Amino acid sequence: MQKFIFTKTPNLVFEAGGIKKVSNIVSQFGKRVLIITDGVTLDATGRWEEIVRILNQASIAFYHTMLQGEPTPDFVDATTNRFREKNIDVVLSIGGGSVLDAGKAVSAMLTQDVSVTEFIEGIGTAILDGKKLPFIAVPTTSGTGSEATKNAVLRRVGADGFKKSIRHDNFVPDIALIDPELMVSCPPHVTAACGMDAFSHLLESYLSPRANPITDALAYSGLSVLKDNLISACSTGTSNVDVRAGMAYAAYLAGITLANAGLGVIHGFASVIGGLFDIPHGVVCGTLLGSSTRKNIAALKERDPEGTGLDKYARLGALFSGKPYQGSEKTVLVDAFTEITYKWTDLLEIRRFSDYGVVDSDVDKIVEKTKNRDNPIELTQQEIREIFIERM
Amino acid sequence: MQKFIFTKTPNLVFEAGGIKKVSNIVSQFGKRVLIITDGVTLDATGRWEEIVRILNQASIAFYHTMLQGEPTPDFVDATTNRFREKNIDVVLSIGGGSVLDAGKAVSAMLTQDVSVTEFIEGIGTAILDGKKLPFIAVPTTSGTGSEATKNAVLRRVGADGFKKSIRHDNFVPDIALIDPELMVSCPPHVTAACGMDAFSHLLESYLSPRANPITDALAYSGLSVLKDNLISACSTGTSNVDVRAGMAYAAYLAGITLANAGLGVIHGFASVIGGLFDIPHGVVCGTLLGSSTRKNIAALKERDPEGTGLDKYARLGALFSGKPYQGSEKTVLVDAFTEITYKWTDLLEIRRFSDYGVVDSDVDKIVEKTKNRDNPIELTQQEIREIFIERM
Repeated sequence: MQKFIFTKTPNLVFEAGGIKKVSNIVSQFGKRVLIITDGVTLDATGRWEEIVRILNQASIAFYHTMLQGEPTPDFVDATTNRFREKNIDVVLSIGGGSVLDAGKAVSAMLTQDVSVTEFIEGIGTAILDGKKLPFIAVPTTSGTGSEATKNAVLRRVGADGFKKSIRHDNFVPDIALIDPELMVSCPPHVTAACGMDAFSHLLESYLSPRANPITDALAYSGLSVLKDNLISACSTGTSNVDVRAGMAYAAYLAGITLANAGLGVIHGFASVIGGLFDIPHGVVCGTLLGSSTRKNIAALKERDPEGTGLDKYARLGALFSGKPYQGSEKTVLVDAFTEITYKWTDLLEIRRFSDYGVVDSDVDKIVEKTKNRDNPIELTQQEIREIFIERM
Repeated sequence: MQKFIFTKTPNLVFEAGGIKKVSNIVSQFGKRVLIITDGVTLDATGRWEEIVRILNQASIAFYHTMLQGEPTPDFVDATTNRFREKNIDVVLSIGGGSVLDAGKAVSAMLTQDVSVTEFIEGIGTAILDGKKLPFIAVPTTSGTGSEATKNAVLRRVGADGFKKSIRHDNFVPDIALIDPELMVSCPPHVTAACGMDAFSHLLESYLSPRANPITDALAYSGLSVLKDNLISACSTGTSNVDVRAGMAYAAYLAGITLANAGLGVIHGFASVIGGLFDIPHGVVCGTLLGSSTRKNIAALKERDPEGTGLDKYARLGALFSGKPYQGSEKTVLVDAFTEITYKWTDLLEIRRFSDYGVVDSDVDKIVEKTKNRDNPIELTQQEIREIFIERM
């Protein structure tokens, strides 16, 4: 067994209708809560009124701020400055990955007196001391897994733009409250993109050379549940709470495994493309799922046919196709898995890069910058190019 | 998917030779550490001198206290009183489950000013607020899983004796440092008893009706690693660090799964017997492994033949026997598993209750008090009696 580290996980409350316990959960930390939402999702379903009523009944004082789009350093600084003197006991985010990341950053920066930019990896030079206010993450989408991770991604747009993280072990949320009922209103195309994000997190962390036995067990469990629910969540099962629970479970485990095992070439692309184009992260991941799988498998067959990478693809082929792992040809299993990744990308109508305005002259700069750290095999620039071009 | 909660896990550092990083790990929390050991194990191997040297090099001031046997409320109170004014930054336990539980309790009680007895479940009436000093757990045996759990078991002997816990989500160790090199010196009979403890934790939590998909994944992973290492760790592999790593991994996951899924009839017995007799906990668990498995399976066949309990026993039969799960008769698989539990109990020379002075007239009071909460099926008093008598 190789050495590994495995970062602490949140206290997880996984319960359909669990949002009704929000006042009990907040009360563990105090009576003054700062709530961050996207200002739309909860209003549209009447959930916001319900939450306000529950908090009022429990005499919990709350402040509320809204985030549109992705969190910027300016948003974090402005929010922090606005609420610093309010004696906040705990920060609560209810929303998608952006809202959760925003809350995670704000809960940390409420204990600091400089701009968050100082702490952003590769941008600032200050060292985080891990201090933060308690933070409760309530996801309303099943994708990023931010409710399980220790980093918050912030984005600055423009000429000096970036998309980078603040990160500390202590930033793992104190509580993740996962209520699949909150996901029922998520529209199919968002569910699909988020689901593909979770799928690629589980897949790439399972295949990572930095995987350890714990991430292997959790990624495999997440994939086995995702397999039964992803297509359904975007079609006939949209309003089925059990189906939504399956996707929420998969996305949560994906957050844990990506943080502990790392990710491969799909996320190498995503980190470059995210800084250049306005394409939903889940679409970037989903559209590359088939071509990256095919290219990885071809490279493994050629350069590491007896390694764990190909064996793990075979196990996934067995899991996703229902064929037995013992007694099946490895080649049959890996081909079955590749086929499913393409089929699902089609079924979920994940669009191509050209649909978002990426043109041929962009290819070079994307491919040059794309790294494949923690990919099951090191790919050549040519292989990376081919993965991308196939999805132009 | 049923609702569930899953308590946070420690920051885990799993590394052969990791003890050499003890000063880095302690330094995260400060420069003054209280160390608890059993005063024997580390001395015998020269490890203690090494640790002292490492701490001195890093200018970390340390206090050291020793625990013989199991921790009592008196030990916790005396230690707390002795070190309360020393401005301790962090508590570090290096030892077996008793030493870890002692450190866990002391790290909590250093922030309180009453006796720990006030907080013991079923004994005291005070409510824990979760305050504690940071606590680092370094196990030297692979058994209790205390390095992963939120409770500390304390024991008072005598007429008003008890064996009960203080417990709080916050008492999960901040860091678990698992260094399998520290386990190499553990003698075979202790390794066997501890290993049977871990085995029964994984088994009973896997089979628990309160199991959830995360505990299932982790328990199965732990069992699959334990299967390859338990017998070896007590025989030819005693000094093999990889084998010790496997057992350390299994015991750690067992701590996580028992805390989140609960345990069955074996631990129902253990909690009663632990208050009455001086029998190592791992021996109680190990000696009951075969008879409880046989009885549980018979009861499931009779009263719940299509439930998850029997199916899970069949999956374990496949795992432990190497027979394929798909395509094998369930009955063949569950019988294979039962056979292995008996065989291993013999191989590891786990003794019977009568060897420890338990006599026929003790049976009634033991059986009457034994509960089978979180057992895969509710057993009758008669069935519980038969499990026990078989191992007299």
